[in-house]
Amino acid sequence: MVSVSRQLDNLRVVLVGTRNPLNIGAAARAMSNFGAGLLRVVHPYEAAFREARSGVGAAELLANAEECATVAEAVRDCRLVVGTTAAGRRELQHELRRLEHGARSIRQHLATGAVALLFGSEKVGLSNADMCHCHWLMRIPTRAEHGSMNLGQAVAVCLYELVRARDGSGGPESARKLDVPASAAELERLTQLLFVVLRASGYVKPRVARATEEKLRRMVRRMNLNAADAEIWLGMLRQIEWKLGARGDATASPSR
Amino acid sequence: MVSVSRQLDNLRVVLVGTRNPLNIGAAARAMSNFGAGLLRVVHPYEAAFREARSGVGAAELLANAEECATVAEAVRDCRLVVGTTAAGRRELQHELRRLEHGARSIRQHLATGAVALLFGSEKVGLSNADMCHCHWLMRIPTRAEHGSMNLGQAVAVCLYELVRARDGSGGPESARKLDVPASAAELERLTQLLFVVLRASGYVKPRVARATEEKLRRMVRRMNLNAADAEIWLGMLRQIEWKLGARGDATASPSR
Repeated sequence: MVSVSRQLDNLRVVLVGTRNPLNIGAAARAMSNFGAGLLRVVHPYEAAFREARSGVGAAELLANAEECATVAEAVRDCRLVVGTTAAGRRELQHELRRLEHGARSIRQHLATGAVALLFGSEKVGLSNADMCHCHWLMRIPTRAEHGSMNLGQAVAVCLYELVRARDGSGGPESARKLDVPASAAELERLTQLLFVVLRASGYVKPRVARATEEKLRRMVRRMNLNAADAEIWLGMLRQIEWKLGARGDATASPSR
Repeated sequence: MVSVSRQLDNLRVVLVGTRNPLNIGAAARAMSNFGAGLLRVVHPYEAAFREARSGVGAAELLANAEECATVAEAVRDCRLVVGTTAAGRRELQHELRRLEHGARSIRQHLATGAVALLFGSEKVGLSNADMCHCHWLMRIPTRAEHGSMNLGQAVAVCLYELVRARDGSGGPESARKLDVPASAAELERLTQLLFVVLRASGYVKPRVARATEEKLRRMVRRMNLNAADAEIWLGMLRQIEWKLGARGDATASPSR
């Protein structure tokens, strides 16, 4: 999936004033999952964040992470700087976009240059001073009653939105090869055999046999069977038919 | 943001065999962020998961979480059961959809009934036996080189996709009103009864009974049965079971 990793090559995830090193590790792991290349940390509370156990599979990314003294330094090479916020708590001086809408603009910028995505500390988020470096702010559409997300989860959600397939583009990636739909002939054989078994078992009432058969025929078509499953059903019904027949007498199995 | 919370009222997040209680807390927090109502845990490794510090702001949700003995119990009231997987590791017997595409179908089902979203353990994910309860599987579009996400982050990303605003227009496609899908409990009853009938008929070979049962469980889920058709199937199988039993002797019908 080279395309996914290419998409976020130009993204810098900037963690500002993060307190818990486990959250830095978790952010790094999400970055590795979605192919974002460069992590920058500004004033991490814990200097040894690179050893965070939560950075499963992201050792290289953590090793290459850059420590910056200021937000300005962390966004120096970026042509678009976007801050994330749970909002709700204070008057914002910035334009605020929902993630779904902001991501579109970020993707456009990533195609031609570096973009910084800023995440503030767990307790208070980005400060007003941090936000001043941002072109605009973005929020994940959480509930108003509980807007504040875990940092690692917020990073994961933002990166996912950046790589997710746009609606309309591309269908389901893997239709199972096995899913050749059953042919009409197979479905009809199945219908007939099911009818025979049900008549032998006493399920089909003679007076309404015709109506029951039609009901079964419609129902079998609703099952969306693939060819392999139709074959399995035929095998099962043949075995049941044999068992019923072997133990039945002629009058109990009028169909045979 | 009442609409967000309403959207996921019918969702059951099911965590199967979770080892780290912090991940259960993190999942609960994400559920609270996005307004998903009900958490169910199957065989959590740590009984005291409700006290997980990571469940910031999700105390009520954790207090109301249900502990279930089996996956079947955890999905009993659901009309759609979806398992999550990082894929890549093994041959899957199920249809696999990317999150973006699977979410569309989940949203449609949520409008009319309960949906279960299953997450396996941190180390090995869902087992094949767990997956047998699923209608289909879903994966988050991570990189092939590092597909496995942190559990709490995976839950957050899935819930976000379910509540995110759709690009462009297009409400949900019109589902046929009559098509209330069969519940997981109904499908499981059907699976069990079919197994009993097939065993009585001699279709099930004792040596591979377990594998056959799992195959049947998957196949029944692939049938896309609505509630009315499931009821019809149960009636047909009960009649066949009765007939086989009435004419069989005890040893020929070991299941009875």
